[in-house]
Amino acid sequence: MYYIGVDLGGTKIAVGIVSVYGKLLYKYTVKTEADKGVETVISNIIKCIESAVAEYGISISNVASIGIGSPGVIDSETGTVIAAFNFKDMINVCLAGEIQKRINRPVAVSNDANCAALGEVVAGAAKGYSDVVMITLGTGVGGGIVINGELYEGGRSRGVELGHIVVNHGGNLCSCGRRGCWETYASASALIKRTMEEAAAHPDSLLAKMVAEAETVNGKTVFNAAEQGCPVAKAVTDEYISYVSEGLIDLTNVFRPQIILIGGGISNEGERLIGPIKKYVAENSFGAGIIEVPHIARATLGNDAGIIGAAMFAKRTLK
Amino acid sequence: MYYIGVDLGGTKIAVGIVSVYGKLLYKYTVKTEADKGVETVISNIIKCIESAVAEYGISISNVASIGIGSPGVIDSETGTVIAAFNFKDMINVCLAGEIQKRINRPVAVSNDANCAALGEVVAGAAKGYSDVVMITLGTGVGGGIVINGELYEGGRSRGVELGHIVVNHGGNLCSCGRRGCWETYASASALIKRTMEEAAAHPDSLLAKMVAEAETVNGKTVFNAAEQGCPVAKAVTDEYISYVSEGLIDLTNVFRPQIILIGGGISNEGERLIGPIKKYVAENSFGAGIIEVPHIARATLGNDAGIIGAAMFAKRTLK
Repeated sequence: MYYIGVDLGGTKIAVGIVSVYGKLLYKYTVKTEADKGVETVISNIIKCIESAVAEYGISISNVASIGIGSPGVIDSETGTVIAAFNFKDMINVCLAGEIQKRINRPVAVSNDANCAALGEVVAGAAKGYSDVVMITLGTGVGGGIVINGELYEGGRSRGVELGHIVVNHGGNLCSCGRRGCWETYASASALIKRTMEEAAAHPDSLLAKMVAEAETVNGKTVFNAAEQGCPVAKAVTDEYISYVSEGLIDLTNVFRPQIILIGGGISNEGERLIGPIKKYVAENSFGAGIIEVPHIARATLGNDAGIIGAAMFAKRTLK
Repeated sequence: MYYIGVDLGGTKIAVGIVSVYGKLLYKYTVKTEADKGVETVISNIIKCIESAVAEYGISISNVASIGIGSPGVIDSETGTVIAAFNFKDMINVCLAGEIQKRINRPVAVSNDANCAALGEVVAGAAKGYSDVVMITLGTGVGGGIVINGELYEGGRSRGVELGHIVVNHGGNLCSCGRRGCWETYASASALIKRTMEEAAAHPDSLLAKMVAEAETVNGKTVFNAAEQGCPVAKAVTDEYISYVSEGLIDLTNVFRPQIILIGGGISNEGERLIGPIKKYVAENSFGAGIIEVPHIARATLGNDAGIIGAAMFAKRTLK
């Protein structure tokens, strides 16, 4: 038997054929076309599943279940996307029902960041750990939590919006409507915004020069400038690291996981990001020096985490 | 069979005889004498248990188990107080072992705020709810979390330090060593500190007059002044309510409980505290208007919650 995992992204849909042990055997990708509305997105998911199955050379009857990791708030009990704000009209759509109607296999849906965390536990950097927090530093800040080896989704699967914990009361306006959310300081977008601001404010700095010469300014730009000795860049990365760490300390103080994984584009900065975060978290967590702090490491599966996790979520849920 | 719950406080020890259904049948109290060291505290606990049993007219052999709610970080697996900072030398003390050695009954230990949350679920304002967050606004901010009807204590029972989530990066210095913790803005102590500061800064205000005339300035002082129309007091209560709410929104976004209970001295302010908090949380939680927000209510058991919860924790744990 095979398990299918679907990573439903804003730009592309990735479908994976996954083994019973959580190994990704085959992957197929199509465009999401989110702007064309829900019906198009659903038929693209179906097409992508059918193509993956056909290309890998199996039949849909060899598929035990299908798991979908979707952005937004999900009712995983009914497989419904309650609201995914970057999809047109994706409000109260029973994705599980719609897919199941057209492909006669059981379908489960969870939040994409939740699935990524489960994927890393089953087959990635958190393998062997039972209590895990994973965060993804991308356009926003996503998160997933595993407690006692099982995905924790919050009450009625509507929780674990880890990007939306406050770090500065009354601070930056967040897309969720609140001010001061962690996401507005710790996302890749926030880092790039601060990079541009500080480059503009210090036109003679090395940072400004590197920004001007860069084809695309991304999270790497300011870390590179800091490494080359630019004090303006160093101030930006220090500030960024402090904000990422503050949120991680909150999650440490509340969940005290064995390990925290950091994923998303920014995690490619590796030790120059994670080294200082480890130090900051160790020094500032509750009971520092007395209570063990979590390991902190990079997620290793990249985008495949969501696919594997979605497949395993369905496998575990649809018993 | 009876169950004993012990609420180990900094000033007094309260022992309760609790029924199998979580009803508090009898209560006995002695002084903690925390300053005299661990040995004295332990023998006071023993004395208090023995007195409670004798006064209620049962024998210790009628007691199925003993639960202790202790401040500090607890390893509930071994019944050890890892660190309770306001007790002299209470570091790595196996309270369960010490009590069990002298009274031959099974003993379990958990954090006092955790026990209070469980107590409210078993016999108080959260009865009938399975997903609950309870916070206590006192000298500090304590918290407990119940998930699926069971106490959630964090990894190795070292989590759920709800007072130590950040609300202002770089803000007020907290006793835990970190800056900006929720506790430094939302505790009763924080409210009283702000009351005194603003009364001093506005000597002609009604608040200043009421502070000067008060026998003891407590949380009620500023709420009373605000109700009588003092704008200085109103600004203090508004600010306080916003800080309490910000932390509750974090807990909502992460746990999405069915109900949030507020306990501690400040909760006596009733609707003039809870009314505005409800509004603030409803308006600023993630997915406001789309995802249900938790009920928010006062805890009803007061100090008895910790006793009942400790007894029920031991009953559930020591199977």
